[in-house]
Amino acid sequence: MIITSFSNQKVKFIRKLEHKKYRQDSHQYFIEGLRTVGEAVQTGAPIEALVVAPDLLVSEFGRSLLDHPNVHDVDRILVSPEIYEKIAHKQGPQGIGAILRQDWHSLPGIDIQPEDVWVALDAVADPGNLGTIMRTAEAVGSRGIILLENSTDPYDPTAVKSSMGALFSLKLVQADWDEFHAWQVRQKVHLVGTSDRAKTHYRKHPYRLPTILLMGSERHGLTDEMMKECDAMVFIPMKGRSDSLNLAVATGILLYEIHHQSQVSDIIEP
Amino acid sequence: MIITSFSNQKVKFIRKLEHKKYRQDSHQYFIEGLRTVGEAVQTGAPIEALVVAPDLLVSEFGRSLLDHPNVHDVDRILVSPEIYEKIAHKQGPQGIGAILRQDWHSLPGIDIQPEDVWVALDAVADPGNLGTIMRTAEAVGSRGIILLENSTDPYDPTAVKSSMGALFSLKLVQADWDEFHAWQVRQKVHLVGTSDRAKTHYRKHPYRLPTILLMGSERHGLTDEMMKECDAMVFIPMKGRSDSLNLAVATGILLYEIHHQSQVSDIIEP
Repeated sequence: MIITSFSNQKVKFIRKLEHKKYRQDSHQYFIEGLRTVGEAVQTGAPIEALVVAPDLLVSEFGRSLLDHPNVHDVDRILVSPEIYEKIAHKQGPQGIGAILRQDWHSLPGIDIQPEDVWVALDAVADPGNLGTIMRTAEAVGSRGIILLENSTDPYDPTAVKSSMGALFSLKLVQADWDEFHAWQVRQKVHLVGTSDRAKTHYRKHPYRLPTILLMGSERHGLTDEMMKECDAMVFIPMKGRSDSLNLAVATGILLYEIHHQSQVSDIIEP
Repeated sequence: MIITSFSNQKVKFIRKLEHKKYRQDSHQYFIEGLRTVGEAVQTGAPIEALVVAPDLLVSEFGRSLLDHPNVHDVDRILVSPEIYEKIAHKQGPQGIGAILRQDWHSLPGIDIQPEDVWVALDAVADPGNLGTIMRTAEAVGSRGIILLENSTDPYDPTAVKSSMGALFSLKLVQADWDEFHAWQVRQKVHLVGTSDRAKTHYRKHPYRLPTILLMGSERHGLTDEMMKECDAMVFIPMKGRSDSLNLAVATGILLYEIHHQSQVSDIIEP
């Protein structure tokens, strides 16, 4: 049975998942496109239903996903090309999407490992930045992302898309600052923050694992209280009229410095 | 005279500048917001007209821009709050915008300096990425951006916004690959490309200034021909399931490595 009506309850539900409130209430979210759905299927992400427009799904890889053992028992929602274009918000979509269960972890459940690198974000506002940070975090082998107060939703469609599937491999945690700070002290994780007023060049600081890289919001950076509680504050040098970098770029530069130092010390001190 | 009608010719013109075709035909573009207009005024960018909604422009900094010597002789287009919200595409805008002349440079007119770092982009598709790359390029003191075939428009509103004013400080050049390659060889500029198939770790390569960092498109990376013509090809290491980084993040990591090496060699070999 291929759904052809926009007033179908399942179609309506998928479209409601565009809104944060509905995502939060249902603890679900919708993902779309070959690459993202492929990552979700292959990594065993908690898929509740596959959404397929058979007439659009011509890719061999896309069709093979339907037979993947990870989704054998998963519901299929079949829709017409018109319906699929509407829920995918684009023309010429690849015809495969999925509804997933959100997968949040709590801080007390996180067991810090000696080599861990985590990213904590305070009040990150742009879902594209958050997705891009997830993508970079996965690329350096980071364990996960801790979202502090007022951060945007990692399950926002733009965040999901920018993460290029990284959100399925990372642990996602939500916490408020006091809880986070108490936990971080108890776990003896090195907390590194960044600010243009810091005194230490980001390449001169010897990062010690386990580390949490704490990044502030796009607009305001870290609060004074957060800076005070960091074990180290580093700056990224800038020339010209620049006084800041894009948040995802700054996070990438710092993550790659931390990553590089940990590789070098692996070699020097085996 | 405050314009209150959407059918006013000037208002219509500003709204047409949202489209690349009109920007190209008129060689103009529209910028919006305190920060961006502030940078344009202060850096002496070629402003054709200031667009002001007096009722919205309450910021003291914003009002002071109107008296800046760089815009003494510049036309003012005064509009109502309703008109301004429409052209700014947002609610609660700050009430100051500007129409600027596009400022393109040609390759033959570019005189490479010994310490130069440039970024060349092939077929970059996302204006947000292009703007973010401009922002990072300015932060490392780069001279400019060379846009090869099919690249998105640096004067796209999203690119302008993401550049945070950097586009007023950078030289922008458009060129096709053959012209670019011939020029780069003549100028004896080191051309460094990146690919996940490259053999050299990006931190192991000794970057020699002047350098052009050549980055491929988000989707396809560099073409085989471009890779072949690079003086060096480097890779950025990745773990997990990642096979690529966001283009702006990768460019940022490489620009900061080039920048860092040039600073270190300044110190070691004065």
